[in-house]
Amino acid sequence: MKYARYIFQNNIYYGIVTGNEISELNGDPFEGYTLTSKTVAVSEVKLLSPTLPNKILAIGLNYRSHLGKVSELGHRDEPSVPEPFLKAPTSVINPGESIVLPKNSTKVQEEGEMVVVIKEQCKNVSRHEAKDYILGYTCGNDVSDRNWQANDLQWWRAKSSDTFAPMGPFIETDIDSGNVMLRARVNGEVIQESSTSYLIHDVSSIIEHISSVITLEPGDAIFTGTPGSPVDIHAGDTVEVEIDGIGVLSNPVVSE
Amino acid sequence: MKYARYIFQNNIYYGIVTGNEISELNGDPFEGYTLTSKTVAVSEVKLLSPTLPNKILAIGLNYRSHLGKVSELGHRDEPSVPEPFLKAPTSVINPGESIVLPKNSTKVQEEGEMVVVIKEQCKNVSRHEAKDYILGYTCGNDVSDRNWQANDLQWWRAKSSDTFAPMGPFIETDIDSGNVMLRARVNGEVIQESSTSYLIHDVSSIIEHISSVITLEPGDAIFTGTPGSPVDIHAGDTVEVEIDGIGVLSNPVVSE
Repeated sequence: MKYARYIFQNNIYYGIVTGNEISELNGDPFEGYTLTSKTVAVSEVKLLSPTLPNKILAIGLNYRSHLGKVSELGHRDEPSVPEPFLKAPTSVINPGESIVLPKNSTKVQEEGEMVVVIKEQCKNVSRHEAKDYILGYTCGNDVSDRNWQANDLQWWRAKSSDTFAPMGPFIETDIDSGNVMLRARVNGEVIQESSTSYLIHDVSSIIEHISSVITLEPGDAIFTGTPGSPVDIHAGDTVEVEIDGIGVLSNPVVSE
Repeated sequence: MKYARYIFQNNIYYGIVTGNEISELNGDPFEGYTLTSKTVAVSEVKLLSPTLPNKILAIGLNYRSHLGKVSELGHRDEPSVPEPFLKAPTSVINPGESIVLPKNSTKVQEEGEMVVVIKEQCKNVSRHEAKDYILGYTCGNDVSDRNWQANDLQWWRAKSSDTFAPMGPFIETDIDSGNVMLRARVNGEVIQESSTSYLIHDVSSIIEHISSVITLEPGDAIFTGTPGSPVDIHAGDTVEVEIDGIGVLSNPVVSE
């Protein structure tokens, strides 16, 4: 099942996507819904981030191919447990909207990632139960300023500047999160490409670790980490994050 | 003016506190309100965190008296700009509720702080305009696990474990944020005590710096930093954070 969140005729809806068509829901996938008889073409709506999270967590250093590939951060060993950090909910933007390079930023890069969307409130979830609390998966771009990331005490503006968390286009409930292809392209060129089978800490382990101390809530998003070597992005570029079975998240880049 | 948020007869209200009495509001201080004719004694209500922030930022290393006083973190120079980090909104607890020491935590400490509550959405605010976007100030406890803070990649669980952000009891609109006394007590003993005149970066500078990259929203909370030397807290302790003109935020400590 593929959920979309979208604007149609000035109202916001959730819907179920089948091919090029969306069936409008009465309700949402978190609180529950019924299917209406109304349908609309995907091309006629404005797609929104498929969740508006109260809280975003993201995992650092979670692909071997990424370790040591951000020169500003130096050498990093493979972490023995997931290494989360927080992103501000105000950093979320919709598919198609612009990533705005902040005026004093100097080295902004894309990070294509698979994002987990939480379905139900949960705490102290074991890795064996984790799937019960997941609604599905979407594409995310964990946009990062490398100089701020290397030099600030914590990664607040490096990772949470406005527009630094594009998400979408859909939440897919049925992919195999441990074996799906993830790609990031800049101006059509493939920059990052990996199977999620190379995640150091898989989705279930991440949820076990986070929920051992932090309550997860419906709609919360967990960015699961980025593979390989991101590149600097500049005004005029277009960044796409694609996950097989979910779709393509595309965002242009502009200067503030 | 002093605002409270509270439960009375199973409903949640905002009110204005005068002495020991609360006047119930129809509405809230963010969206606007009218005063009702209903009053209730403070002692008859359950006080809640006076804001439910979508986003919490906190400033590290913002009192000279605190620099180098957390041995796990080593020596730190005085930062030339504010050094924010994020706390998860799920870490907020109400006055009187228990700080729960997570089961694998080993060295949890209190941090008494003055907290700014944002009134209106804003971005790119200059330090001269900052006051226009502030609703008022409350007491906060930036509870911290020092071993996680020293050893994790980022401070997520060190600062954002559930119950690690007690706030309250009231929002005071009229204190001089640059010259008010702040104290933290553990079991009645004064552990931290400072005037906010010793803030390295004052409230206006903090708002200018954060809002240059992150949109602040109504109800967002900014913990402004902690003075002096916090101590380890243990199950059975009671931690109080007091700011003259605001009140006392008191929370017991329990083990998970």
